[in-house]
Amino acid sequence: MSDVVTVRGFVASEVKTILTEQGWPVASFRLGSTERRYDRTKSQWVDAGTNWYSVSMFRGLAQNASCSVVKGERVIVTGKLKLRQWVNGERRGIAPEIDAEAVGHDLFWGTAKFKRTTHTFE
Amino acid sequence: MSDVVTVRGFVASEVKTILTEQGWPVASFRLGSTERRYDRTKSQWVDAGTNWYSVSMFRGLAQNASCSVVKGERVIVTGKLKLRQWVNGERRGIAPEIDAEAVGHDLFWGTAKFKRTTHTFE
Amino acid sequence: MSDVVTVRGFVASEVKTILTEQGWPVASFRLGSTERRYDRTKSQWVDAGTNWYSVSMFRGLAQNASCSVVKGERVIVTGKLKLRQWVNGERRGIAPEIDAEAVGHDLFWGTAKFKRTTHTFE
Amino acid sequence: MSDVVTVRGFVASEVKTILTEQGWPVASFRLGSTERRYDRTKSQWVDAGTNWYSVSMFRGLAQNASCSVVKGERVIVTGKLKLRQWVNGERRGIAPEIDAEAVGHDLFWGTAKFKRTTHTFE
Repeated sequence: MSDVVTVRGFVASEVKTILTEQGWPVASFRLGSTERRYDRTKSQWVDAGTNWYSVSMFRGLAQNASCSVVKGERVIVTGKLKLRQWVNGERRGIAPEIDAEAVGHDLFWGTAKFKRTTHTFE
Repeated sequence: MSDVVTVRGFVASEVKTILTEQGWPVASFRLGSTERRYDRTKSQWVDAGTNWYSVSMFRGLAQNASCSVVKGERVIVTGKLKLRQWVNGERRGIAPEIDAEAVGHDLFWGTAKFKRTTHTFE
Repeated sequence: MSDVVTVRGFVASEVKTILTEQGWPVASFRLGSTERRYDRTKSQWVDAGTNWYSVSMFRGLAQNASCSVVKGERVIVTGKLKLRQWVNGERRGIAPEIDAEAVGHDLFWGTAKFKRTTHTFE
Repeated sequence: MSDVVTVRGFVASEVKTILTEQGWPVASFRLGSTERRYDRTKSQWVDAGTNWYSVSMFRGLAQNASCSVVKGERVIVTGKLKLRQWVNGERRGIAPEIDAEAVGHDLFWGTAKFKRTTHTFE
C-alpha cells in the first residue's frame, strides 16, 4: 500500500550525492511542482501553489542523475511518496519525500541526448 | 501539472462537514496510509511508516461521504495532492492534503451496499 | 515496472465468480470509463470515447465485491493494467484487464454502508 | 475522468513525425513495458508479459521527442490512456494508446544531457 506519485516539476537545487558505508551512491535534489489553474476573472492561467519535495535516488539511478540533472531543469519523477515526520527538540514537522523509481528530463521543455550506462553494484 | 495520487488507507477521524456561504457542503477527514515492507530478518511483513493526509471533498461527494464514511473504515481516495505551507507566528510547516476527486470504501476489507443519490447543486 | 492505473467508471456486467482448484474465489466484471471533454462549439461537456476493461479480483476482494458490486453502479478501481494478447485460430487481439488491488463504490455518485469482513483464506 | 498512466518502458520503433494542416507536429512511437515478477521455483526474476502502447505526442513535445528519442532507449511516459476501438471490414480490435503529457529518458538506465527549447506554436 505504497502511495505512488508521478510529478512533473523543476529542479530547485543541485543534485547532492553521498556514498553509503557499502559504497553505494545515494543522491537527492529539491523538486518544485507548480499547479496552474485558469482564472476566469483574468481570463488567463495563473499559478495555484507549489508542492515541494525532496527526491531520493539510489545506486544506478543516483549515479546517472548526478551526472545528468542540473538545477533549473525540468524533470518527470515517479516513485513512492513519503511524508516523513521529524522532531527537533520542541519543534516538529513533515518532510515530503519521493523515493524515486525513475527520473527523466521532461521533453515537453527541451531536447536530450541519452547514453546507456552499466553499473556493477546492481 | 497537478500531482495526482491514489491512496488506500484508514479513516482516522469522523467526517467534518461545513456549508460555504453559497450553501455548498465541504467535508474533510483524516486519512492514514501505512506502508508495509517485508523484513527478511524477521521473515514477516512489518509497518514502514504512515503517511497522514487531510482529505477534502466538495458538493455531492462531500454530502455523500458525510452520510457514508465512518471513523475506522478502510477507503480508497483519488485526487490532487496539495502540500500546503502554513505560517502561525514564528512557526511554520506543511499540511498534506488531498483534494478528492473520488472516495470509496475499500472492498478488500469489507462489503458495502451502494445507493445512488441526486444533488441539485451540481 | 507494472503499469498501475486508477479508473473511475461504471459496472457494465454482473460480477462473475468462480472458485480455483485451491478453493479461492476469483471474480470479474466489465468496467467502462468514459472521458468527458468540453466542446467549445456546443459550449457543453460531451463524451469523448469509452475505455473498456475486464476487472479481475482475487480472494477476499473477490468475495466482498461479489456481495457488493451490482451492474450499473459507479466504482473506483486501482490495480495493474494488463494488455493481454490473445490468439484464436487466425484471429488475434488485445484484451485490456485490470488486476485489481482495490475496488470501491464511487461516493461522488451515491452513499454506501460498509461492513468489515474476515476471510480465513488470507 | 481520464484514465492516467505512468509507464516505464523501451522504445520499440523510430519516432514518426507528421505535420497537421495547421502546421503543428504530431509524433508517435511504439512503447513496450515488461512486467517482472519473482519466480519462487527458479529463485529468480522473470518476465511476466509485455504491455504494448502507441505513444502520441503533440506540438513542442512532439518536436523535442523527435530530436531526442531513439529506438531501443528506455523512457518514462505519463499521459491519458485511450483504448481505441477500430473496425476494418469484418475485423475489429483495440489499439491501446497513450496521449502523452510528458516523456523523458529513464535515468535508471543511462545519463542524458538536456537542452531547453522554445517553440513559437505554443
